[in-house]
Amino acid sequence: MNKTLYNTLIELSPICKKDYLSSISVDCVVFGFYNDKLKVLLIQLDGLDAWGLPGGYILKEEDLNKAANRILEERTGAKDIFLNQFKSFGKTNRSENVFKDCPDDLWHKQRYISVAFYALIDYHKVTPVVDKYSAACEWKDVDNLPDFMMDHQTIFESALLQLRKDLNYKPVGLNLLPEKFTMPELQRLYEAILNKELNRGNFYRRMKRYGILNKLDETRKGGAHKAPDLYQFDKEAYKCSLENGLSEIW
Amino acid sequence: MNKTLYNTLIELSPICKKDYLSSISVDCVVFGFYNDKLKVLLIQLDGLDAWGLPGGYILKEEDLNKAANRILEERTGAKDIFLNQFKSFGKTNRSENVFKDCPDDLWHKQRYISVAFYALIDYHKVTPVVDKYSAACEWKDVDNLPDFMMDHQTIFESALLQLRKDLNYKPVGLNLLPEKFTMPELQRLYEAILNKELNRGNFYRRMKRYGILNKLDETRKGGAHKAPDLYQFDKEAYKCSLENGLSEIW
Repeated sequence: MNKTLYNTLIELSPICKKDYLSSISVDCVVFGFYNDKLKVLLIQLDGLDAWGLPGGYILKEEDLNKAANRILEERTGAKDIFLNQFKSFGKTNRSENVFKDCPDDLWHKQRYISVAFYALIDYHKVTPVVDKYSAACEWKDVDNLPDFMMDHQTIFESALLQLRKDLNYKPVGLNLLPEKFTMPELQRLYEAILNKELNRGNFYRRMKRYGILNKLDETRKGGAHKAPDLYQFDKEAYKCSLENGLSEIW
Repeated sequence: MNKTLYNTLIELSPICKKDYLSSISVDCVVFGFYNDKLKVLLIQLDGLDAWGLPGGYILKEEDLNKAANRILEERTGAKDIFLNQFKSFGKTNRSENVFKDCPDDLWHKQRYISVAFYALIDYHKVTPVVDKYSAACEWKDVDNLPDFMMDHQTIFESALLQLRKDLNYKPVGLNLLPEKFTMPELQRLYEAILNKELNRGNFYRRMKRYGILNKLDETRKGGAHKAPDLYQFDKEAYKCSLENGLSEIW
């Protein structure tokens, strides 16, 4: 840890102690999609090599979900993001390495249980914000990640696993794709998340069966091939299946 | 709140403050299955009408998952239970009603974020334990529940919803049924969880496709009808599908 970060921590510690709940933090795994690549938003603490997930603390009079939304907005400028709380992480030695040279009564050095959320965000609507603790806040390719600090690798992997599971019964894409998109673009999003190729015919049939897509009277112009059809999500049907699940197996 | 509970709280408050993490608690939704009914284990605080979920706090040097297992064991005597952490609950006013007549510095009166787990337990292996705070600890039928205290109704409903979703990609039954069971018994467990009737043929086919059942060379004797076949879970296959999911849709 460098001197700048150390001094910032010492300065902010008493303010944090006054404003926030003890022992509990929030971490956000923010996914975006750009150039056919799944991305995740990471921060780098000032003077540290390893990267981490954007996170923060919960105000004493603030609902947990509101705290997560506030923290995300502070980092990305993005409002009203749909956040999926997926797991809380509470091993005893989660973060002791990072603050080992700091005084024991430093707010940030205490033990935290972290409630983790994942979010799917439109890459173009995000302005990564470097806060007081950080030297950088950047999108990184999910298939080419740097080293993580604390247990953030575990949290990230757990989020990606959950997102993949959620594909089985939740629609995905509304915040990751542009307003109008082609079926191949939607398929490439699914393939990026699942990290595997999907059969085109099966994908089309399944997507159509879900009833969440409206086919538009437009096509994507400009390519060398036959212009592909454009689609839009049916917002009502999308919202409904987000709440109730796409398919009931049983 | 009656005088007994009040005095217990006042007595335990400083001990709790010394031993446990602030601001964070654990609640357990414990499901059992008996007489074709899905059951949940509830407690009643001394002098309160409403019922609640068994819960507790996390020791300062204890992993979150270990805390959940310890709390569950203290209530049920059941060891090594597979616990599913499904959500954390953190509205600001979660529990203020219950402790409104207590001093503001009472440990139990502070604001808690609660990490909730659900567990599936063999009804016969549980010995409900009434602790210092409680007047009762009992199994209740899921389809005939008493009033809940705090936000425990919300936590319970969220657990049941999660269990139903989990049926889509996790095996269920190992801890809820006896060692040997018939297909109709397994089907009734699923029907109790889903609260709906299932088609017998579809159920049989799906279960066999999962490859987690071993058909035994025994039948269930004693009924008026043709003796039905007995099955056992294939422990290895069951464990594997618990970790990796029953079916990959994509």
